[in-house]
Amino acid sequence: MTNAGNELTSLITSTPQEGRDLAVKLARKSIAEIQTDPEIRKSLRKSYAEDTAQLIASAQVVAVEFQTIAMANNYWR
Amino acid sequence: MTNAGNELTSLITSTPQEGRDLAVKLARKSIAEIQTDPEIRKSLRKSYAEDTAQLIASAQVVAVEFQTIAMANNYWR
Amino acid sequence: MTNAGNELTSLITSTPQEGRDLAVKLARKSIAEIQTDPEIRKSLRKSYAEDTAQLIASAQVVAVEFQTIAMANNYWR
Amino acid sequence: MTNAGNELTSLITSTPQEGRDLAVKLARKSIAEIQTDPEIRKSLRKSYAEDTAQLIASAQVVAVEFQTIAMANNYWR
Amino acid sequence: MTNAGNELTSLITSTPQEGRDLAVKLARKSIAEIQTDPEIRKSLRKSYAEDTAQLIASAQVVAVEFQTIAMANNYWR
Amino acid sequence: MTNAGNELTSLITSTPQEGRDLAVKLARKSIAEIQTDPEIRKSLRKSYAEDTAQLIASAQVVAVEFQTIAMANNYWR
Repeated sequence: MTNAGNELTSLITSTPQEGRDLAVKLARKSIAEIQTDPEIRKSLRKSYAEDTAQLIASAQVVAVEFQTIAMANNYWR
Repeated sequence: MTNAGNELTSLITSTPQEGRDLAVKLARKSIAEIQTDPEIRKSLRKSYAEDTAQLIASAQVVAVEFQTIAMANNYWR
Repeated sequence: MTNAGNELTSLITSTPQEGRDLAVKLARKSIAEIQTDPEIRKSLRKSYAEDTAQLIASAQVVAVEFQTIAMANNYWR
Repeated sequence: MTNAGNELTSLITSTPQEGRDLAVKLARKSIAEIQTDPEIRKSLRKSYAEDTAQLIASAQVVAVEFQTIAMANNYWR
Repeated sequence: MTNAGNELTSLITSTPQEGRDLAVKLARKSIAEIQTDPEIRKSLRKSYAEDTAQLIASAQVVAVEFQTIAMANNYWR
Repeated sequence: MTNAGNELTSLITSTPQEGRDLAVKLARKSIAEIQTDPEIRKSLRKSYAEDTAQLIASAQVVAVEFQTIAMANNYWR
């Protein structure tokens, strides 16, 4: 996996754990694409990290992104 | 990818990053199709860009659109 | 695509754009099936078209309907 | 399709429209399984039929059920 | 289907209706796994059974679980 | 399944029940990745375990994670 920069160059990862990490990264990048100001994102961060409803909604985004990545990697079978 | 205009002509993209960009574009087009007034959309934009619950919901839409695009591109394998 | 009437006769469309249009139409038909009074639907329309959370939720419905249509059309590859 | 009774006997339908109808029926049956009192369901019905957020959420359930039915019918290709 | 106990031993069911029943059961088990106290679950039950937004959200969970079960059973074709 | 540590090493499980357990674990790990302070997570736990809307949303996350795991295991057929 060579997604070190901001560009997504591949969905292929070596391990399922790297797939999880990529899923979290994609979810975060989606939010950064809509709220482009990093200072505002930082100030918003505390609010959702202590709001369980938003934590659960975030986990839902990660679950869908991970499903796509798992398919791409043929589930690391 | 030749989706420069407002018409969606293809789901095929050269890279995963272009697939992400298309997913964001499709999500925005859905909203523009329901709220057709660009001035109102602009005024609404600030409210959701500073509301983490809505940012997360937007990321969920992007995740589903991206899954479809990734399937179409055979995951850029 | 010959879905001119109210009956859904096919998921096959000529282009991805027609697939998007059908996805929006299916989402609207679902709502019309639950709230059958067109006058009430019209009065409700303004409320959700100016509420970003509901616009985003609507975009999510369109994304799922579109995924089904894209599968049906083998992604217009 | 022979799902006239309360039992779901098949996901196969003759047409996409029958597939939509079955998707709506499945969504309603899920709710009836949780709130088993038909009188309470009737009284609740008005509230969600005039609440756009709930209409949109209902449309989301129909979209997922329809995706399953469309897969089962090989998209009526 | 031999899922009489609390352990999920198989996703295979004889009929689509049994698949629906299993989907509802899986949704309930997820909730029981998070809120492990049966008395609290019982007291919570009334609140969501009379709240249409939560009934609809529950139907969404059932729809996703059912999709998985339907795939496992090759849609009972 | 050898996911005893914090690293996700495989999506393959011996039984559907182990697949459910892994789905719950993945959902929890997503939340822990966003809210990294275990003390805050513990304090938040009570609030969502007694809020049915959040319990249902959690069940939705588990349903999507389980779908991915079930696909990976070819539905334990």
